[in-house]
Amino acid sequence: MTYNFNAGPATIPATVMERARGEFIDYANCGYGIIEASHRSAEFEEIIARAEGNVRELTGIGDDFAVLFLQGGASTQFAMIPMNFLPPDRTAAYVDTGLWSGKAVKEARKIGHVAVVAGTADADYDHIPELPAGTVATDAAYLHITTNNTICGTQYQAVPEVPDCVPLFADMSSDILSRPLPFESFDLVYAGAQKNLGPSGVTLVIVCRDLAESGAANLPSMLDYRTHIKGDSLYNTPPTFAIYMMALVTDWICEQGGLSAVAEVNRRKAADIYGCIDHDGFYRGRARTDSRSAMNVCFNLPTAAQEAAFVEAAAASGLIGLKGHRSVGGIRASIYNGMPPAGVNALVDFMQEFRRSQG
Amino acid sequence: MTYNFNAGPATIPATVMERARGEFIDYANCGYGIIEASHRSAEFEEIIARAEGNVRELTGIGDDFAVLFLQGGASTQFAMIPMNFLPPDRTAAYVDTGLWSGKAVKEARKIGHVAVVAGTADADYDHIPELPAGTVATDAAYLHITTNNTICGTQYQAVPEVPDCVPLFADMSSDILSRPLPFESFDLVYAGAQKNLGPSGVTLVIVCRDLAESGAANLPSMLDYRTHIKGDSLYNTPPTFAIYMMALVTDWICEQGGLSAVAEVNRRKAADIYGCIDHDGFYRGRARTDSRSAMNVCFNLPTAAQEAAFVEAAAASGLIGLKGHRSVGGIRASIYNGMPPAGVNALVDFMQEFRRSQG
Repeated sequence: MTYNFNAGPATIPATVMERARGEFIDYANCGYGIIEASHRSAEFEEIIARAEGNVRELTGIGDDFAVLFLQGGASTQFAMIPMNFLPPDRTAAYVDTGLWSGKAVKEARKIGHVAVVAGTADADYDHIPELPAGTVATDAAYLHITTNNTICGTQYQAVPEVPDCVPLFADMSSDILSRPLPFESFDLVYAGAQKNLGPSGVTLVIVCRDLAESGAANLPSMLDYRTHIKGDSLYNTPPTFAIYMMALVTDWICEQGGLSAVAEVNRRKAADIYGCIDHDGFYRGRARTDSRSAMNVCFNLPTAAQEAAFVEAAAASGLIGLKGHRSVGGIRASIYNGMPPAGVNALVDFMQEFRRSQG
Repeated sequence: MTYNFNAGPATIPATVMERARGEFIDYANCGYGIIEASHRSAEFEEIIARAEGNVRELTGIGDDFAVLFLQGGASTQFAMIPMNFLPPDRTAAYVDTGLWSGKAVKEARKIGHVAVVAGTADADYDHIPELPAGTVATDAAYLHITTNNTICGTQYQAVPEVPDCVPLFADMSSDILSRPLPFESFDLVYAGAQKNLGPSGVTLVIVCRDLAESGAANLPSMLDYRTHIKGDSLYNTPPTFAIYMMALVTDWICEQGGLSAVAEVNRRKAADIYGCIDHDGFYRGRARTDSRSAMNVCFNLPTAAQEAAFVEAAAASGLIGLKGHRSVGGIRASIYNGMPPAGVNALVDFMQEFRRSQG
């Protein structure tokens, strides 16, 4: 048995993979695969409607929000957001919690004025900063946060308090639909699918319709949220197979019992690994305990040599993708929705055994 | 047996579909599917290198060209091209041969000055215009053409002559790698994959490296060709499964004997349908004979009622997706690389039978 702990693209639930294989060549007896079907076909229209319906059911958002399936990943959203919502005479507020937040800041600075209102760079991004009242100016164009940080393994434990008049935007690429959240507190949420929702190649965007309507004029059509709202994500040919997979994965999340149920499983998975880390000091967690991520568990061993030996021995035991991000090294176990508890159990067993082998 | 004549996403070669299904859950014995594999894994690196190698082998381009796998489809290229290559003090030349050319023009006009130097709107886009010497100003920023037009079924039969100093750009979304072309005559070629190369969700771009280096400064990273050249299409997480499918489809093109071989098959497929159209005047081809597309065969029947009956009866016989684009009506048979000759034979048989049934 192989368990894939890569940070994304990542493990997809086994039942979803089996179903997709079963109907790969002949979808719903139409005589060809959904990957070959027109995006205007009745079959695909049902799929994209189901994916949207699942997202709406799981998040509880109302009709004042649009659900979009776009291309280009979070990296395209880093630019699209300020292009739409950062006018020349305003300043956007960003919280810097890691490499990906930093990229969002860098792209926004190409478009307009940016204030990094809080950040933890000087603590090696080991925690999520507090945002005390007054941190975000009431005339900020918006506040942008990154709810989970894959590289250092930190995660917001709650939605930060923001002045009512400031729209709240979140990159949820690495923890979308992994736990209940008051999604209506956010004005715009985006996430590449390749961690919790399916394959790479499709970006889920949930955006307040009124906000979208307020965007800048004369934007390239593909970079204007209004285009995709008006076209129901079919302005141009969407990534049909990736959306199909997202429909299957969100079906699966619903079948598990929704976000509360998957969050409980995710919490237990993470607690099992953190418990092992906290056991005796051989493993050292990278994130401060109050900011620990339930998605990416990042830790170190006493020496880099032991870390390399750990990764190699784990792979030999069928536990792959455990090497930390190249910018920080160490070990990273990514345990998104699709990682079964059995995979985490196998990892914990391996960690205990490896620890013993090191005396 | 079902044959899918949709304009795209479209039929993928049966052997490719079988192979993808066979290894969907367990790719190369790694214990998981390629759709779940990290884009930094050895498995995926081999795949993207193979896709690039196939494109290089089939097109014969040299190392002065980069091969990129991007997201966002041709519609994103419509904006990205002028953002990179249309300075405020220059004018870009466009040839208008249909709806998609028109969209390219519309997006370019948001960025800078555009001259539509030739077009066939006043002839209902029924042919490809001549471009006599002097049509394109020698100081044009570039000339943009659309090599195949899906809606009216026209196709450039040869690469147009352009002043040496004017870069030639082509949207080849609907005929890329369907025939040999002097690809080095183009400075930038782009194509959504979903017609000749695989599934939707990945855009092939072939761009002259020197041209890319000359692009505008301070662009959003995702909209700057240099970003993707520098990152070998891995600046951000690419659409891995779509690229995998493109690797398989281009493997298949190579196995068929390359572009000359697939072009000969494509030519015969088209000739069979056009032969049926030219038989007795019941079917009327939409495109002028000198501009006929080998990819999209568009035609009319005597009445709209007969066209509706044709589409319905064809679908009942397993020939689906034959309805013309909503903007023009009529019938459209899209017969890209992946459509087997047997599908075209079945269509021709059906056309003859339907013709007889109409007295």
